[in-house]
Amino acid sequence: MLTNAEIKEIRKLNERSKARREAGLFVTEGPKLFMEAPLEWVKKIYVTEEFLEGLKDGREGSLKISDMISWMEHEVITADQLKKISDTQTPQGILCVMEQPQYSLDDIIKKEDKHKLIMILEDIQDPGNLGTIFRTAEGAGASGIVLSSGCVDIYNPKTIRSTMGSIYRMPFICTKDLKGTISDIQKEGIKVYAAHLDGSEYYDEIEYTDSAFLIGNEGNGLTDETASYADIRIKIPMEGELESLNAAVAASILMYNHYISNRIHEHR
Amino acid sequence: MLTNAEIKEIRKLNERSKARREAGLFVTEGPKLFMEAPLEWVKKIYVTEEFLEGLKDGREGSLKISDMISWMEHEVITADQLKKISDTQTPQGILCVMEQPQYSLDDIIKKEDKHKLIMILEDIQDPGNLGTIFRTAEGAGASGIVLSSGCVDIYNPKTIRSTMGSIYRMPFICTKDLKGTISDIQKEGIKVYAAHLDGSEYYDEIEYTDSAFLIGNEGNGLTDETASYADIRIKIPMEGELESLNAAVAASILMYNHYISNRIHEHR
Repeated sequence: MLTNAEIKEIRKLNERSKARREAGLFVTEGPKLFMEAPLEWVKKIYVTEEFLEGLKDGREGSLKISDMISWMEHEVITADQLKKISDTQTPQGILCVMEQPQYSLDDIIKKEDKHKLIMILEDIQDPGNLGTIFRTAEGAGASGIVLSSGCVDIYNPKTIRSTMGSIYRMPFICTKDLKGTISDIQKEGIKVYAAHLDGSEYYDEIEYTDSAFLIGNEGNGLTDETASYADIRIKIPMEGELESLNAAVAASILMYNHYISNRIHEHR
Repeated sequence: MLTNAEIKEIRKLNERSKARREAGLFVTEGPKLFMEAPLEWVKKIYVTEEFLEGLKDGREGSLKISDMISWMEHEVITADQLKKISDTQTPQGILCVMEQPQYSLDDIIKKEDKHKLIMILEDIQDPGNLGTIFRTAEGAGASGIVLSSGCVDIYNPKTIRSTMGSIYRMPFICTKDLKGTISDIQKEGIKVYAAHLDGSEYYDEIEYTDSAFLIGNEGNGLTDETASYADIRIKIPMEGELESLNAAVAASILMYNHYISNRIHEHR
């Protein structure tokens, strides 16, 4: 039975970052985000009869999901009930309440990556941009992500969706002390680069080893204060009359340049 | 006077791609998209009294906008009326009806760019992704963009907003005959690369000169048929368990790699 209190609780978790923070929980929807979830994060599964029926088609993903559901406690609800607790127009038959993971900076900087790649995000506001940065960070083999306290909530349902599952695999921390965190990163011998329109060097003319990239807010870029903590300001050249690139695009260009230039060193 | 018929007409232009296509018009909002617009595209300007007042602050952008408005016919409307015709929650005081530009493939392939860079987009569905590709394309000095008829409408208000003005400066065509258009591009000596998860070469191991990149739909990637028209399939390497990158991110990585590798040749 899905009680009214539960419905109210889950809606709050979908709608309010404060509710998520206080409960230490967040919500994911759909088979993909269920299938890829670390089991120890999953606190509660809500699933429709129709969804369970559909799993009997025996396809690879369906088998895995069937298995997972059969091991774990889950609640069967109606499609109408799912609609009430879902954040999307067309719910996909399964919704989970998850525990928020707890990482420390050490989980990011002590990773045994050949060449560390850390993203430090200041006040990224768009949920889609934040999720996309997580997604690309996984692709580019990043060690982890540092979020300033002014960033949009990583557990926002839109952000979660645009991570495409990377939320489960990319360590991250939120910091109220960006200066202190940057300094801790530098103490590990990791160079901090600020993506800046007034950068003194082009991003593609640097030999990167262990690196962290500072990316600023969509509208305003990095604050002068935060940019001043970086070891070097770098810029992405631009043709035309553009003022700037999209924040997720700029982050992606820097991450992939770091990634492929280190791949090339390995190859040769 | 803003008549009810006008209100209805502008709302239709904001909401329906069919209405835009039939009228050959589209709508832009806000001072930035007004200021950067080619004057010959502007068909009608609606502006609030408050917006005109605000221009008297004498700042650089304000002066330019004042000048432009004073040269051109414009209609002063109330904030309430603007709200009725606006696509956004918080309208920015100025809204324009614009003529759709008419480009031909020659406007793209005959450009005197040192190294041609053309993006060919198949069925891109997300307005934000499409606009972001336009924006990055300008930054990377692309010659132009080809859209398959299955792409989201480039004149969608969300797409227009996310181009950040690149819509005015980046030539583009929509084609019903993708095969024919690709073949015309190839006849000009431009190599066509398909971004594909099964690519035979890594994107960063190719010497690019005149190039076109085929980018597929967000969910499904390129259709087999379209991929088969390419000269080479290339892939972007990925760490982790990711299935794919965001379409605008993949496009941006390819465009910037093309751009900087040609910049490097010039430098050296």
